[in-house]
Amino acid sequence: MAFVLPDYHPPDFGLPQFAEAPLATFERVTQEGVAPADFHATSIFPEYLHLEKGTWRLIHESRMDCTVVLEGGTTLSVKEFRHLVPGDLVACGRKENGENGIFVHTDGFRFPSRSSEKFAFRGRLTRETPFSIDYDELYGLLEHERKSGFILWVLGPAVVFDRDARESFVRLIDEGYVHGLHAGNALAVHDVEAALYGTALGQAIYSKRSTHLGHYNHLDAINRTNAVGSLKQAVDLGLVPSGIMRAVISRSIPFVLAGSIRDDGPLCDVIHDVYRAQDEMRALARRATTVVALATQLHAIAMGNLLPSYQASPSGVRPVYFYNVDMSEFVASKLADRGSLTARSILTNVQDFVVTLERGLREACV
Amino acid sequence: MAFVLPDYHPPDFGLPQFAEAPLATFERVTQEGVAPADFHATSIFPEYLHLEKGTWRLIHESRMDCTVVLEGGTTLSVKEFRHLVPGDLVACGRKENGENGIFVHTDGFRFPSRSSEKFAFRGRLTRETPFSIDYDELYGLLEHERKSGFILWVLGPAVVFDRDARESFVRLIDEGYVHGLHAGNALAVHDVEAALYGTALGQAIYSKRSTHLGHYNHLDAINRTNAVGSLKQAVDLGLVPSGIMRAVISRSIPFVLAGSIRDDGPLCDVIHDVYRAQDEMRALARRATTVVALATQLHAIAMGNLLPSYQASPSGVRPVYFYNVDMSEFVASKLADRGSLTARSILTNVQDFVVTLERGLREACV
Amino acid sequence: MAFVLPDYHPPDFGLPQFAEAPLATFERVTQEGVAPADFHATSIFPEYLHLEKGTWRLIHESRMDCTVVLEGGTTLSVKEFRHLVPGDLVACGRKENGENGIFVHTDGFRFPSRSSEKFAFRGRLTRETPFSIDYDELYGLLEHERKSGFILWVLGPAVVFDRDARESFVRLIDEGYVHGLHAGNALAVHDVEAALYGTALGQAIYSKRSTHLGHYNHLDAINRTNAVGSLKQAVDLGLVPSGIMRAVISRSIPFVLAGSIRDDGPLCDVIHDVYRAQDEMRALARRATTVVALATQLHAIAMGNLLPSYQASPSGVRPVYFYNVDMSEFVASKLADRGSLTARSILTNVQDFVVTLERGLREACV
Amino acid sequence: MAFVLPDYHPPDFGLPQFAEAPLATFERVTQEGVAPADFHATSIFPEYLHLEKGTWRLIHESRMDCTVVLEGGTTLSVKEFRHLVPGDLVACGRKENGENGIFVHTDGFRFPSRSSEKFAFRGRLTRETPFSIDYDELYGLLEHERKSGFILWVLGPAVVFDRDARESFVRLIDEGYVHGLHAGNALAVHDVEAALYGTALGQAIYSKRSTHLGHYNHLDAINRTNAVGSLKQAVDLGLVPSGIMRAVISRSIPFVLAGSIRDDGPLCDVIHDVYRAQDEMRALARRATTVVALATQLHAIAMGNLLPSYQASPSGVRPVYFYNVDMSEFVASKLADRGSLTARSILTNVQDFVVTLERGLREACV
Repeated sequence: MAFVLPDYHPPDFGLPQFAEAPLATFERVTQEGVAPADFHATSIFPEYLHLEKGTWRLIHESRMDCTVVLEGGTTLSVKEFRHLVPGDLVACGRKENGENGIFVHTDGFRFPSRSSEKFAFRGRLTRETPFSIDYDELYGLLEHERKSGFILWVLGPAVVFDRDARESFVRLIDEGYVHGLHAGNALAVHDVEAALYGTALGQAIYSKRSTHLGHYNHLDAINRTNAVGSLKQAVDLGLVPSGIMRAVISRSIPFVLAGSIRDDGPLCDVIHDVYRAQDEMRALARRATTVVALATQLHAIAMGNLLPSYQASPSGVRPVYFYNVDMSEFVASKLADRGSLTARSILTNVQDFVVTLERGLREACV
Repeated sequence: MAFVLPDYHPPDFGLPQFAEAPLATFERVTQEGVAPADFHATSIFPEYLHLEKGTWRLIHESRMDCTVVLEGGTTLSVKEFRHLVPGDLVACGRKENGENGIFVHTDGFRFPSRSSEKFAFRGRLTRETPFSIDYDELYGLLEHERKSGFILWVLGPAVVFDRDARESFVRLIDEGYVHGLHAGNALAVHDVEAALYGTALGQAIYSKRSTHLGHYNHLDAINRTNAVGSLKQAVDLGLVPSGIMRAVISRSIPFVLAGSIRDDGPLCDVIHDVYRAQDEMRALARRATTVVALATQLHAIAMGNLLPSYQASPSGVRPVYFYNVDMSEFVASKLADRGSLTARSILTNVQDFVVTLERGLREACV
Repeated sequence: MAFVLPDYHPPDFGLPQFAEAPLATFERVTQEGVAPADFHATSIFPEYLHLEKGTWRLIHESRMDCTVVLEGGTTLSVKEFRHLVPGDLVACGRKENGENGIFVHTDGFRFPSRSSEKFAFRGRLTRETPFSIDYDELYGLLEHERKSGFILWVLGPAVVFDRDARESFVRLIDEGYVHGLHAGNALAVHDVEAALYGTALGQAIYSKRSTHLGHYNHLDAINRTNAVGSLKQAVDLGLVPSGIMRAVISRSIPFVLAGSIRDDGPLCDVIHDVYRAQDEMRALARRATTVVALATQLHAIAMGNLLPSYQASPSGVRPVYFYNVDMSEFVASKLADRGSLTARSILTNVQDFVVTLERGLREACV
Repeated sequence: MAFVLPDYHPPDFGLPQFAEAPLATFERVTQEGVAPADFHATSIFPEYLHLEKGTWRLIHESRMDCTVVLEGGTTLSVKEFRHLVPGDLVACGRKENGENGIFVHTDGFRFPSRSSEKFAFRGRLTRETPFSIDYDELYGLLEHERKSGFILWVLGPAVVFDRDARESFVRLIDEGYVHGLHAGNALAVHDVEAALYGTALGQAIYSKRSTHLGHYNHLDAINRTNAVGSLKQAVDLGLVPSGIMRAVISRSIPFVLAGSIRDDGPLCDVIHDVYRAQDEMRALARRATTVVALATQLHAIAMGNLLPSYQASPSGVRPVYFYNVDMSEFVASKLADRGSLTARSILTNVQDFVVTLERGLREACV
């Protein structure tokens, strides 16, 4: 199924609604990290600000729940509250249809609708929703993005708990489908553990056997990596004979490992400060045109918060795709409930998902 | 991975424990459907009854939670309570190590152990348990059983809610991996609905679109089938151009459709009386050497109740394998909790499972 | 919170849409159990048929996915397909706004809306949805229904697996909040098992201890009950010293125990034929003004299929409430997906639900 | 049910196994954050090191997956890898029965067993496991700990999403059942949001209504709090009229709010560096005698990692209790799988749990 980017339809700023709209207003920050009381908060959608009569400017590199700061009179920058400094000019006003000089454009892309009925069974996403078509669409999309986009993967540790899933993901990297990686300490630790000992948390990733003193394996994996100073050093020295981190590092694919209070260790590559980690994640998110999150509620929701539904570049505006693969209706609902409206969820075990996806991409490209 | 049946090790009846054991005792049923108060209840394991000094007889075609009835002086028959009639001689006594002339043999097969550690993380089955090896073992097992066994499938409707899963299952039938089928009304109804309209409960099984008046589709599927008198008639008349029921019927594979209080219709092939349905299911279960249940809590547990852990034939005793594929840890635990100890569970979406299994079997056989 | 029944607003049949509508058409059944091809299928909503010029008749005692049969020229009866007999006059036509002389009235009741926003987080029901208000509404509703309605309970076995939940439910019966009961074999078996042995499937319902030979307990409970002929006999003879079945039988509250293929036994009170069971369940459903289903996917969905969203009587039309309490978002979604639109779900463990509900009703009535 | 602390039985170091054991060995750290290759890793159990002939010293304030460092010749300190500095003397050797001068004492406490059967249904924890007894035990335990222990609560945001749960938890604080609190940014944000606007993420915590511009509420809650500098300032200034944070701060109960990559804001009280947060959490964990975690996978597992199964003080050794309340079998299994063996799980919605617990404690104390 050949993938075609949907067209973007900007608002018709010739309409009276816009012609008669006031200019956007800005107020100065007076206290570090604190916005003016009437701040406007961004959404995941394209938003336009009326900067001078007749000129509506699209904000770039947006994300939801942030402020819009006017820099140098014409540049609009989307800033987290924690990055506000005194003097910043923050857009104010909470009306979204131009009344405050701000327009939130919720239907810029024309996606094909999936329903034409008033009443229908099975409208919600559950484990019983068919997803053959999602695979077929993903084959087309990822093939397109491999050449013309930026595919960012968000991985939970389950991806390296199973031999076949881990090996399939390495092949996705080798075939060029991975342009960025975000995960936590555990994904990297257990990937290295699998490389060194064939286990994850002491359980063999193929035979499922618990190995003798296997509960030491992840600690040894951390300790041995930290002894040489970094994952990159460990890979360069040949200490990590296989796996996802090795493939990513060998190919100089950027990755962000964010720390959490759940971590052992951590590996020396892990970022301790979660808001600095968020900044690094957002740096990847700005480049991402498609994000695929696998089996990680924490990281998937975190990335969903950072990810706009569109990407603007000199060549135009395009949608950003966000797939979330998880076993749990609760997690799928939670993502939807947080307003990540462009998210699509597939309810399955990521072990199967990765293997099937990799095989399907290989067959689709023959 | 070539599959080899594990050996069966019968008890050593020369041991004093057995030599000194009393004979099994039997009491007569005096009231229809009611056992003597001290009845012995069967388990899923091989059980031996001491019928005359030095002679321990293995019961055949067992299932758990039933009585053992002595027929004609030497035949042991495993009977549900509801089938007891006055005069039946029911084995009595609840001790399981010979004290009542009954021995329950819980470790006749030597399966390779998966752990050698006292302490280990990740001992329980969850969605994060790896299952590459389960696929590989299934390829070997099903290849063996295709020729030498009887593979019984228990299907929930989710198998026909997705195009690729439905088509893959039909290929499994065509390739000889399906020797019996058990399901409910819904599986058959939505399979026929998919054949007639391309939908399940009105939602297209590929595009996910809700079709106009789609909530009539399953009722029309039932009504049109019942109008010709049976699924077989519908298939023979060419009314059902595709699907699982068509494939099963065309190849004269036995199937049991059991009714439930949740059914619309039902299709005329569905058995109304659940205990008659259970009898028919058990007739399949007696023949089964491997059972695979897909996404159906009700039918999986029902079949688990009917299925012993072994099959005895003139050529010897072999294990009966029982795989259960479901999304829910709760269902997996529930099966384990009911004592179906030989059950193995795979936690994933059956859509992926069926597609991956069929593809793997195809590749493994090349 | 005092409960007030919402008003029912019948359609305004004076509108041109109705005045100009054709009369409803009927076709004769020619084959037992088979409807004319163009049959009209009922919904959960009030539906009106145009029987003679200007006369629209409301169907009573409806349920979804059935046919409407004209009896004696003026009576409209909602019949399952399996009950159709040759000669029956079945309403035909699938348009729902009068075009075929049939009007489906989807908004006859004015419920207060819960949202006034275009965009909002947390629109879907999950375990994180607050339900303090649901308890408060239930206190008001059940207090009203105790005197003026018919409260039908649908119970999964988990209600008797826990001592406190079981005792609280008995108090609900004793206080008059239970007018009908529907369940399966397991609920009754484990309730009797708890009365006889203090266990459910051999595990103590308070201490959780597994008792010696406890796996016999449910079989003994069945066998001892069947030996005296019925649950009622067992209660009358004093064999069942406590529990839900005892309370229900002592107070002559009607109950329907439906069989399933998963049953051991069964108890002699269980209905073997699921469609006869469905008929009995529907007889209760016709009387029900509020239904509360606890921890049973099978029975909750089955009852949902039988239950209309309204009840019509000489004194008018009122809504029928349907609460479903379950741990699983999947089950909650499944009920919604089947079109049971008046269903409200509470996601929690029924042990807590029953205890809290009973205590709250007690306190609310003081 | 009056609670009695179980006795602790130290090992009998007069046994030959101990008398003949070698002394524990220690190796020096040569690189910051890196342990000697053969380091011994701690468990959740009491561990004894053989420091000089005949003297086995118990380690205090342990936690799993850390090193043991000898300080000043006689003090044993349990240190995370990241805190190791060159020169630290780390205990080495991985045998646990004295062979390396280290003894891991896994059965020091005699808890009553819950089973005496070889075979039993329902051995695993599921939503159908009864928990009346857990409530009763908790009433006794928390009453004991209120006076003589340190009760640490770990809260997910769901506790403040519902009015009744939030109010009940405040009463638990007021009554002295809360000695420490650990949570993430979201718990505090939505608690303040509820105090200011009556909502959580814009949805009213009682009526469930989505309020106008409600998606601004949590951002405004953060921004207003940060404007005054801290939660404490906000409480002291009277800006936060109700809720958990207000109650905790008013009573000078210590709390740790750990940041995560999922956070908006954050509130200025949140710790950015997750490993510093972990240190602060461990400072609470060292004091904790009972921990109750409510509806938070991340924080519950994180706390489980930090929490030993015992606490040693001059007056002796006592167990540390760890209750985890969650809706998901997966989370319950995950905790068990990580080796937190003293954890007990209750599968229910925390809304009900908190309300029931608070009411039960009140009634139990009357």
